[in-house]
Amino acid sequence: MKIGLLGYGTVGKGVAKIIDQKNTEDVAKLEIAKILAHTEAGLTDGRMTLDINNILNDESINVIVECIGGDEPAFTYVKKALEKGKHVVTSNKKMLAIHGQELFALAHKTNLALKYEASVGGGIPWLDSLDRTRRVDHIHHFRGIFNGTTNYILSKMSDEDKDFDEALKEAQMYGYAESDPSDDVDGYDTAYKVALSMVKGFDVIPDISSIITYGIGNISAKDIAYAKVHDRECKLIGTGIRQSQFVSGYVIPTFVRKCSLFATIPANFNAIESNSENLGSMTFVGQGAGSLPTAHAVVQNVIDIYRQQDLEIFEKSNVPVANQESFAQFYIRSKNIKLLMDNVDEVIDDHACISKKMSYAELDILVKMLADDQLFVAEMADDCQ
Amino acid sequence: MKIGLLGYGTVGKGVAKIIDQKNTEDVAKLEIAKILAHTEAGLTDGRMTLDINNILNDESINVIVECIGGDEPAFTYVKKALEKGKHVVTSNKKMLAIHGQELFALAHKTNLALKYEASVGGGIPWLDSLDRTRRVDHIHHFRGIFNGTTNYILSKMSDEDKDFDEALKEAQMYGYAESDPSDDVDGYDTAYKVALSMVKGFDVIPDISSIITYGIGNISAKDIAYAKVHDRECKLIGTGIRQSQFVSGYVIPTFVRKCSLFATIPANFNAIESNSENLGSMTFVGQGAGSLPTAHAVVQNVIDIYRQQDLEIFEKSNVPVANQESFAQFYIRSKNIKLLMDNVDEVIDDHACISKKMSYAELDILVKMLADDQLFVAEMADDCQ
Repeated sequence: MKIGLLGYGTVGKGVAKIIDQKNTEDVAKLEIAKILAHTEAGLTDGRMTLDINNILNDESINVIVECIGGDEPAFTYVKKALEKGKHVVTSNKKMLAIHGQELFALAHKTNLALKYEASVGGGIPWLDSLDRTRRVDHIHHFRGIFNGTTNYILSKMSDEDKDFDEALKEAQMYGYAESDPSDDVDGYDTAYKVALSMVKGFDVIPDISSIITYGIGNISAKDIAYAKVHDRECKLIGTGIRQSQFVSGYVIPTFVRKCSLFATIPANFNAIESNSENLGSMTFVGQGAGSLPTAHAVVQNVIDIYRQQDLEIFEKSNVPVANQESFAQFYIRSKNIKLLMDNVDEVIDDHACISKKMSYAELDILVKMLADDQLFVAEMADDCQ
Repeated sequence: MKIGLLGYGTVGKGVAKIIDQKNTEDVAKLEIAKILAHTEAGLTDGRMTLDINNILNDESINVIVECIGGDEPAFTYVKKALEKGKHVVTSNKKMLAIHGQELFALAHKTNLALKYEASVGGGIPWLDSLDRTRRVDHIHHFRGIFNGTTNYILSKMSDEDKDFDEALKEAQMYGYAESDPSDDVDGYDTAYKVALSMVKGFDVIPDISSIITYGIGNISAKDIAYAKVHDRECKLIGTGIRQSQFVSGYVIPTFVRKCSLFATIPANFNAIESNSENLGSMTFVGQGAGSLPTAHAVVQNVIDIYRQQDLEIFEKSNVPVANQESFAQFYIRSKNIKLLMDNVDEVIDDHACISKKMSYAELDILVKMLADDQLFVAEMADDCQ
């Protein structure tokens, strides 16, 4: 089966390497026919071209593998590929989370595969496991550490008493954080992954702006110290819950108890848990990024297409994301904490408190009311598993 | 697709419940036509029979689901089912690990599926993930906490300073241990699971007696105390390694470091890690047993057969299990410790030491030489992941 590979960065190079190696019988059936490079200097291989049309108009190519990343031009290329009758495999969570409603509808209409295992959890077979679980079971909720960059920063702050800037610099030095880390640090990367997990788990394509998203950009040594004194670790957790009429989706720093599995997840690892009716709780732990693990997931999807496995695309609905039915207590630090009035359960000091139990929807209203761009908020999670 | 269900205990009842519920489109395509009960009193359902031939001779039945457990009569029934052209799904690790060479050869000859996801890790999609990983990658090794009963006992001994008998009684009270717990406690249950993971991961059907197996039956509060003082936890770990000409396979109590993921695995949970060339390390954590999780895995296998997914059976080889190429240091407690002579690296006291680094094959020779039925041995594992 002939593949057109778009993008030759970290993931694209890994995909080419694995397919060119032909390590297994399945992989030996695949062939990268053309590669879209970005610059003249990037034309290092006879299969490379700078013109997307050389790839899209090549009728011998059945599958487009998109590893460019970012919104445009990836979105336009993927859309054109589907319009031209080509299956698509993408590792691009941002593009797919933003344009999911349009692209999944297009794939459904044209009866083509649009697969995206590598976009969540790198090499962890997370989305595939949701597919598989759903053959037998209903998934109630999922939650996890979806972002290795922030987990690395939080681990360094907690274990080695580094401050945020120092930990971020170290993450950048080791290649765990990008030069512009805002998508990771502000929680959007996690929100994209929560959105795509909802597509797989609940058949819902959420509007990405409806997922409540708090990041760790404002976290301070004081916040980490509070967590540690209370036998907790701070982790950035993304959650999706299927409820009666709605789904809930949110991303929030969470003070998890030391006895929990999430508390032990080291450095740049991911850990993602699903919870379903008969199967119960299941957690996957692995490196959520990296060239070869992510490329492995891409190649798995190409083999799924080759084997015509799970090609049927469930009809997706646009059930709204609401967050009225999920409740927790929250650690809130803000210079305007006094405005919280009777929403406070426990005063920590003049600038920090533990809130009463409230819904995420209520929290979001309160946070907006506080209007503090230095505010830090974290869920107090009570379970030990 | 019509199913003949053999056995109506914990797992069998779960299978019937999930299939009768028809919760998903896939499950709705399955039907339990007949159920083999054990006693007259067990004939609680119109589909039940006491005569295996009523099921094996029913030509409308395509798949036999075997949940009887134990060696016989399960082995004879499964063999007859394959001879009669029926696919088989089993949750029976002991039967399959002992008779694997004969049964896999028979399934291969008759071109029938012999699937056993539920036999390892309960609801954890462990064997399926090995299958999937191998489409793209080579698996180097795997290791894990495969047995919830012993993990429960070890957790109670470590966390609550209970002694072995007390912890075992509690495990029996909660249904985590059977009235005869020897297969769990002595490590054989883990050895069966290591053997079946080797079949999936390495295409090798090992002779079960060649897997070096040490259990926790002799563990004492003193051993646990030694681990704790050295910032470690004791876990019963099963390992399989693909090496140059051999494979290694062993089961041994292991003093893992507190910083490792395995150290945090609570109560009756399982955690199993695979390590492959491109994908790297991947760990699955979940409840390794229980009626519905295990039944979920059985039903997944029936759907695999219905969907004709991954039906091809890799040719299996009988590569010998040798243990000369895997090295570690060991904690050894024995009244005969002095016989170890210059194999000792560090003396703990008159009856316990840390050995020099040696292969598992060498360890096994030393342990036999010590001839102490109260001996306890544990690997000192040094990694933190």
